[in-house]
Amino acid sequence: MDIQELIVLVVADGVGGIPLAPGGKTELETASTPNLDDLVRSNICGLMIPILPGITPGSGPGHLGVFGYDPLKYVIGRGVLEALGIDFDLGPNDVAIRGNFCTVDDAGVITDRRAGRIPTETCVKLVEKLRAISIDGIEMFVEPVRDYRFVVVFRGEGLESNVADTDPQLVGARPLDPVARNPASGRTADIAAQFIHQAREILRDEHPANMLTLRGFAKKPPIPSMEEAYGLTASAIAVYPMYRGLARLVGMNVLPSGTNLKDEVDALKAHWDSSNFFFLHFKYTDSAGEDGNFDEKVRRIEELDAEIPRIVELKPEVLIVTGDHSTPAKLRSHSWHPIPVLLAADSCRPDEATRFGESHCLRGGLGTFEAKYLLTLALAHAGRLQKFGA
Amino acid sequence: MDIQELIVLVVADGVGGIPLAPGGKTELETASTPNLDDLVRSNICGLMIPILPGITPGSGPGHLGVFGYDPLKYVIGRGVLEALGIDFDLGPNDVAIRGNFCTVDDAGVITDRRAGRIPTETCVKLVEKLRAISIDGIEMFVEPVRDYRFVVVFRGEGLESNVADTDPQLVGARPLDPVARNPASGRTADIAAQFIHQAREILRDEHPANMLTLRGFAKKPPIPSMEEAYGLTASAIAVYPMYRGLARLVGMNVLPSGTNLKDEVDALKAHWDSSNFFFLHFKYTDSAGEDGNFDEKVRRIEELDAEIPRIVELKPEVLIVTGDHSTPAKLRSHSWHPIPVLLAADSCRPDEATRFGESHCLRGGLGTFEAKYLLTLALAHAGRLQKFGA
Repeated sequence: MDIQELIVLVVADGVGGIPLAPGGKTELETASTPNLDDLVRSNICGLMIPILPGITPGSGPGHLGVFGYDPLKYVIGRGVLEALGIDFDLGPNDVAIRGNFCTVDDAGVITDRRAGRIPTETCVKLVEKLRAISIDGIEMFVEPVRDYRFVVVFRGEGLESNVADTDPQLVGARPLDPVARNPASGRTADIAAQFIHQAREILRDEHPANMLTLRGFAKKPPIPSMEEAYGLTASAIAVYPMYRGLARLVGMNVLPSGTNLKDEVDALKAHWDSSNFFFLHFKYTDSAGEDGNFDEKVRRIEELDAEIPRIVELKPEVLIVTGDHSTPAKLRSHSWHPIPVLLAADSCRPDEATRFGESHCLRGGLGTFEAKYLLTLALAHAGRLQKFGA
Repeated sequence: MDIQELIVLVVADGVGGIPLAPGGKTELETASTPNLDDLVRSNICGLMIPILPGITPGSGPGHLGVFGYDPLKYVIGRGVLEALGIDFDLGPNDVAIRGNFCTVDDAGVITDRRAGRIPTETCVKLVEKLRAISIDGIEMFVEPVRDYRFVVVFRGEGLESNVADTDPQLVGARPLDPVARNPASGRTADIAAQFIHQAREILRDEHPANMLTLRGFAKKPPIPSMEEAYGLTASAIAVYPMYRGLARLVGMNVLPSGTNLKDEVDALKAHWDSSNFFFLHFKYTDSAGEDGNFDEKVRRIEELDAEIPRIVELKPEVLIVTGDHSTPAKLRSHSWHPIPVLLAADSCRPDEATRFGESHCLRGGLGTFEAKYLLTLALAHAGRLQKFGA
């Protein structure tokens, strides 16, 4: 490897797994991964605890961790994550809120918290109607997400976001009022109340989506950029908007990424000289896990493995392949299980692992460490960290 | 395992050990444990650091750790532990103190800090005499413990416990005055001085126990209950009072537990539907270790192993077998050595360990972790934790 000091972080979302039955293999151990195995043999591997033992991360904290930020210190609210998920470019004066269309009866009591899971087309039409809402002194954005879900953004000076959800989280109750939980958030609560008041009139005759609830009022957390924190010019390659958004949160430049993994590696190659850190996100290992589809997850891991040589050819100083959390097909959800990680660099101390899988990683030279330390390990192996102390 | 979300935590006190000589096996590795080995083969194991590397815990911090509380944050004073050890039901206004009978010469100088280790019967008689002491404005309890040891409890509004020990910790010195170490503890120090003054008169003509010292002034620490902290209805099964008391400190319901391990498992079975967390304490692994009796500790471990199938039959969602610390027979005392732990649950990621013993646990999938994380791991494997962040 050469002296470009380039770090490539490949995140195979939810890559960690568990066997379907004791004595079996995990998805990663079942997959045929000759290229990843080659990397492990010459380099070092280990396991990462995403947050703390037993704690399952959402996508936000999972990624903050591997980007080198303590996910217990920097918290991303639901509204912000939802806005990132539709590529909404949040500014510092924005309060983002997740909205749900719901159904209420004549007395205003919720009878369906998801309005019969209306199709996205209906959501788009309703959102267009909501854009007629006007509130003095702020700019407002309403954007459809999917099914019954949408995003509202209030933009204005001095808006704070500590406002309680209006979703009572159960049917048979009325939507709650948006209550400010501190004085500074009073204005946002007032604006939300006006929004809800006008929306109620607009939606009154719709069916089944004749009302809405608001959750997860949040502002972009004040996270130092990777440039500020680590001196890295960082770029992100991701097919899904949410991951591009998470990358933008830490100041990454987002590259055009195409629609599949091959496109993503093409993008990496095309922009190779533009950054000294690349985050490349592969979504489908997680999707297959969430679907409970063990075989599909295995196939997706093999798809990733097949692209590894094209990344290796670029000769990054440090290449890391890992996940943001585990998503065992058996559990059909994110989980707390430690995440396999491999780190390839000329400066690494190779271990005896010969296969990229959970069992080998358990004996790997990196040991088991908290994900927030991954980036310092990457920087160290790239020769980018100075001695601590004289 | 089924969906009851039941967690069973079996604490074999002091179960961890070391070999008598290099090349040998530990007590746990020497024991024949087919049932525990079966569990390890299909599940996951590891090692727990009770407090921090190299730190040997007493029973209090050892148990707080495995109950999910940071033992460096919640500190149990000696007086409190002593009171728990005799099943004394401490209230929030109680200051508990450990008392020692001692021998002083005519000048009041201590000649024996333990009064010749008087028999418990003598202790009981002397304690009865001390109960004649009366102090204005408070209730007072004096209870025998064993040999030269007893407990004093002052009960009254606004008593604080930051009072220095009167035991000078050496012979040839006079007992010290009970000095308040902050203004709020001044009244407690005054009461203690009155207590000592009256006790001196009462004990004057006794021999050898003609005086006493007081140590470890303490109040019950404000620990959130397991219900508050973890949403668990927790029950404790323990033959020895101190462990019942420690369980009560974190809000566990204490079940009638009989006098031996078989009784304890019977109690678990009988009360199976009453709680979603059971702590079952097995004392004799520690007792044998403290006695330096390696073979007896091996036998006690085998006794535990023989009862495991009756626990497994109950089909807990999560079954954990571990200790609160190590007690190597070779050292005849508690030690800092990491504690073997096995966790059995459908949702675990099995490892390659095939034997419940220190060497296998060192390669186990749980790795080596601080004991305070055991409970979050248990909750995660029981499916009782929500995702952190969106």
